[in-house]
Amino acid sequence: MALIVHKYGGTSMGSVERIQNVARRVAKWHRAGHRMVVVPSAMAGETNRLIDLAKAIQAEPDRRELDMLASTGEQASVALLAMALKVEGVDAISFTGWQVPIVTDSAFTKARIESIDDHRVREHLDQNRVVIITGFQGIDHAGNITTLGRGGSDTSAVAVAAAIKADECLIYTDVDGVYTTDPRIVSDARRLDRITFEEMLEMASLGSKVLQTRSVEFAGKYKVKTRVLSSLTPPDIALDKEMNSGTLITFEEEMDGTHMEQAVISGIAFQRDEAKITLTKVPDVPGVASRILGPVAQANIDVDMIVQNQAVNGTTDFSFTVNQNDFKRALKVLEEQVVPTLGGGEVTGDPLIAKVSIVGLGMKSHAGIASRMFECLAKEGINIRMISTSEIKTSVVIEDKYLELAVRALHKAFGLEGAPVEEGGA
Amino acid sequence: MALIVHKYGGTSMGSVERIQNVARRVAKWHRAGHRMVVVPSAMAGETNRLIDLAKAIQAEPDRRELDMLASTGEQASVALLAMALKVEGVDAISFTGWQVPIVTDSAFTKARIESIDDHRVREHLDQNRVVIITGFQGIDHAGNITTLGRGGSDTSAVAVAAAIKADECLIYTDVDGVYTTDPRIVSDARRLDRITFEEMLEMASLGSKVLQTRSVEFAGKYKVKTRVLSSLTPPDIALDKEMNSGTLITFEEEMDGTHMEQAVISGIAFQRDEAKITLTKVPDVPGVASRILGPVAQANIDVDMIVQNQAVNGTTDFSFTVNQNDFKRALKVLEEQVVPTLGGGEVTGDPLIAKVSIVGLGMKSHAGIASRMFECLAKEGINIRMISTSEIKTSVVIEDKYLELAVRALHKAFGLEGAPVEEGGA
Repeated sequence: MALIVHKYGGTSMGSVERIQNVARRVAKWHRAGHRMVVVPSAMAGETNRLIDLAKAIQAEPDRRELDMLASTGEQASVALLAMALKVEGVDAISFTGWQVPIVTDSAFTKARIESIDDHRVREHLDQNRVVIITGFQGIDHAGNITTLGRGGSDTSAVAVAAAIKADECLIYTDVDGVYTTDPRIVSDARRLDRITFEEMLEMASLGSKVLQTRSVEFAGKYKVKTRVLSSLTPPDIALDKEMNSGTLITFEEEMDGTHMEQAVISGIAFQRDEAKITLTKVPDVPGVASRILGPVAQANIDVDMIVQNQAVNGTTDFSFTVNQNDFKRALKVLEEQVVPTLGGGEVTGDPLIAKVSIVGLGMKSHAGIASRMFECLAKEGINIRMISTSEIKTSVVIEDKYLELAVRALHKAFGLEGAPVEEGGA
Repeated sequence: MALIVHKYGGTSMGSVERIQNVARRVAKWHRAGHRMVVVPSAMAGETNRLIDLAKAIQAEPDRRELDMLASTGEQASVALLAMALKVEGVDAISFTGWQVPIVTDSAFTKARIESIDDHRVREHLDQNRVVIITGFQGIDHAGNITTLGRGGSDTSAVAVAAAIKADECLIYTDVDGVYTTDPRIVSDARRLDRITFEEMLEMASLGSKVLQTRSVEFAGKYKVKTRVLSSLTPPDIALDKEMNSGTLITFEEEMDGTHMEQAVISGIAFQRDEAKITLTKVPDVPGVASRILGPVAQANIDVDMIVQNQAVNGTTDFSFTVNQNDFKRALKVLEEQVVPTLGGGEVTGDPLIAKVSIVGLGMKSHAGIASRMFECLAKEGINIRMISTSEIKTSVVIEDKYLELAVRALHKAFGLEGAPVEEGGA
């Protein structure tokens, strides 16, 4: 029988009844003979409640103390889940991050896991106990409580799975897997049975927020077989059905050839609420890019896409996108701090644009994928404002109002549509 | 300057505003040059909220997991208070029980403190920080979180004060000290400037619930100068006034002679909601008492007073008091389990009685104190049902309806009345 890690999000742990459902599901796996480790999040709303309390006291809460505070949410969850499992007749024991211990660096509120001691976990697994471990948190070398930042429980689960060499890490969430695109926009979007880590990373960072990006990186680095699946199925759903549901995030070499041939593109990701800023007639000299983006970064404005074109007549154009909320501030930084020092340049901007990306490992080996994308958009009369590419994705910036049209057209053009695959199907 | 421990209860920590007030008060002490350790309780209501959640999941929650859960309340408090102190411009750092560490035995939900390592606390005090430590909790030798039971934060504070050899432990609460009796019954009840540990123990266990009994025992054992004072005074009240307010719990040898002569009795304690059960015509043979109380204890019924009289004609009478809620169950236990095995005895009971006690170290050296008590009650026409005495207290059981009358008459008879002593007075 296998060694399995389950991770449950805040919604799955959101009430007494839901915690009982989680316990029933875990008990089912345990009774089938699997050795189980469970990583639950804080009950939905709890982390926000705590952070609101902190902010009411200190506008920018001290980060060490904020971690001390926020980590209590998961600590309460693990204890409650252990109780619920005992009611199910399954022996269980809960551990905090420091009890395992899960050792992190000291970057409070965004710590990174350095090591996990599996000794204690294994000792209790050997006694046929379900081991429940707090997500989101660890302990630094000085004995302080740290947290991994928002969504850190995904990372905790994958890291624990890596440390104990689990056969699979199952991330239960409120969607039933990773889709070719957002089903709210394309009604016949298809759930993917499998996706590679690389594709998942591009999908996640581009807005398909199923899994925290860092957890996917972790899974890729330590080769943890990770599955995203629904926590909304009945807890007593047949185990073999559940084991093959959702989307398995896996390695390139494990993907079968057929899959790669069939679908050069795995999905269409997109991002709304972005804004575009362009500096034209910038003198084409070394160091220009950093002189433009340095002051932007110093103003704590995150930049997404960056595009610079070949210089013509000694000047070049430089464009980047930011979150819509940062648009005005970014314009101001450019006009007041950048243009005067550059000795040239004109600032223009578009306060509302959208980014659409095609993602797929198949792109590496198929020429002409990008041009097929551009052709498709042209056919719909959608003007492309910016283009940026990587090995496994191509992104374009378009007018916001064309977003749905673009996603639907691309989804169709790349043959992604289809009825959702049946549970357990391949 | 002194090394001081402050303890704040759940009410004092009950809201953002109140936490800010606690921070202001602590900051005032710190600015005056004192080295400060603070032990706050969980925010009012939080511990109950957590226990209710646990009970909704498991009727009798697993005790290890309950401690894991309940300890989060204090952990949140210390973090919030550290933030509030930083806002006051005072450097502060919070620690959980396991971080100090406060080592306890493994009796979950009612653990006892075994040792406290003061190394870490001192290190941060030396850096001019206020050190904030979770009340109510510790860590056992296996690394599990334990709690000390309800009111355990008082004990934590006194134990920490003992470990770091604090000059004084100040317990801030919603009353301004220990009174000669309940001011709700006797309007001119007087706040005591000082009381001995022994008297405080009798006052506490007899119903003057100002401090948890165990914390008083601890203070007595480790000679921790402990003061009970009000958290309701303005946080910026003058420090010298605050330092001399409340009631100091101290040692017999420190009490000045005058005090002992003046007041042979320190206070009148009482307990309502008790019931009395009497077994008459009990065969006077060895082991009778345990054969009566054994089954009562097994039924988890707490017994308060126990009185047995000299045997007459080979039989004796045996009486004890229980909480009113346990009266019917106790009667049933006696009739069904005790009387049949004793081979005799008749059960009678009184479902509602009250206990009144006079408490005072002076009783040791003054003959006739008890008789003065009985005389006073007789003068009021109050019949005494039971009498029990110890070195520093005499308790009587009377009809419930006479309670207020008895307390007022005794308070007057022993000259306890008087206007509350001025703040700072001796």
